[in-house]
Amino acid sequence: MIDFETFFKISYGLYIVSSGDKNSGNGYIANTVFQVTSTPARFVISCNKNNYTSELIQKHKTFSVSVLEINTPSEIFGIFGYKCGKDIDKFKGINIKYGETGVPIVLNSSVAYLEFKLEQAIDMGTHTMFIGELVNAEVLDDTKEPITYEYYRTVKKGFSPKNAPTYIDKAKLEKPRNEIDNKKYECDLCGYIYENSKETIKFNDLPDDWTCPVCGAEKSEFTEI
Amino acid sequence: MIDFETFFKISYGLYIVSSGDKNSGNGYIANTVFQVTSTPARFVISCNKNNYTSELIQKHKTFSVSVLEINTPSEIFGIFGYKCGKDIDKFKGINIKYGETGVPIVLNSSVAYLEFKLEQAIDMGTHTMFIGELVNAEVLDDTKEPITYEYYRTVKKGFSPKNAPTYIDKAKLEKPRNEIDNKKYECDLCGYIYENSKETIKFNDLPDDWTCPVCGAEKSEFTEI
Repeated sequence: MIDFETFFKISYGLYIVSSGDKNSGNGYIANTVFQVTSTPARFVISCNKNNYTSELIQKHKTFSVSVLEINTPSEIFGIFGYKCGKDIDKFKGINIKYGETGVPIVLNSSVAYLEFKLEQAIDMGTHTMFIGELVNAEVLDDTKEPITYEYYRTVKKGFSPKNAPTYIDKAKLEKPRNEIDNKKYECDLCGYIYENSKETIKFNDLPDDWTCPVCGAEKSEFTEI
Repeated sequence: MIDFETFFKISYGLYIVSSGDKNSGNGYIANTVFQVTSTPARFVISCNKNNYTSELIQKHKTFSVSVLEINTPSEIFGIFGYKCGKDIDKFKGINIKYGETGVPIVLNSSVAYLEFKLEQAIDMGTHTMFIGELVNAEVLDDTKEPITYEYYRTVKKGFSPKNAPTYIDKAKLEKPRNEIDNKKYECDLCGYIYENSKETIKFNDLPDDWTCPVCGAEKSEFTEI
């Protein structure tokens, strides 16, 4: 028997993984980043094949990881977590620097970044594991704490989008509830669900300038489901 | 340029990874565990080839991951993090259950466990990445928080042992200091270094019943270096 609640006991940070070059670059929010070996310093990430960044990593053989800080604003999660780089230029208005390899590196809300040369790509079905050898790494702000996935999930009420390795179908977690108001409202933009039964304020009583805690969409962009 | 301080910005949990069967089992402390795909639920770990558990995973084609809680006592880190299962029976006195696959699962200080069938082993030089397909997972204690590597490092003052993927040679981090007392004392058991210049109490002024914060060794087991 698999209890999917166990998945929330695995600790992760949150990062923007980027690839490309000065002409075309893209990045996405990732939680699955870890160090594989110490000598040489190698890291691995797991990236959905549908992510545009995945294509760019395969093409440019390089990627960067920006470590997000605890107070990263919702807009950053909205742009890099819930939109596709094939539809919009995610780097528009974003503070980018280009690494030794030419890879774009996101500096907004980042406490540090690491830059990699692609060493190996391992096919995992829906995802690819990219192994990178570290070529460059810098601390950008030592006064700020990195955000954890746990913090994002419990305090910021975010969740993994469909493409994430850690995506969980909510039906698997649903438990029966006895409350009278079970109305649910889904964000058309990112899929975040506001459930009256889990909140102290009913959706309709929220102020008009309330925005989606995950992607920053306006209240009018929610649909009752 | 690589600033090794960036490595501490990557978030990890802490786990006991175990393998074997009822006759011979072993486990070690790991921080490198993450989910690779959602369908099927697959996870990856990075394991040093010198770890006895690595041999057992290759032989038994199964492994378990116990998620450690925030108040895990030093003794658990001492036994599973700094001793070798070839020398001692790490499971002596430990609360073990055997999973569907027959794999041993450590229950002490664990908030949850996950049990895997080995799907793939990927050679990474000093380490092997083991990909496991999840067959069983259970929450053991939902009232306790999982420990993070950050907490272990900053609050419990632990660090990665030599076999860990995240091991850092301390010489790479050393910065010149102007303090007068630069005496250092190394734990003979686990290699933890107590530095007078970084502590409020000098080593010699510590009480006699003080023990190594990492492995629980006695004060007499420290040597000045």
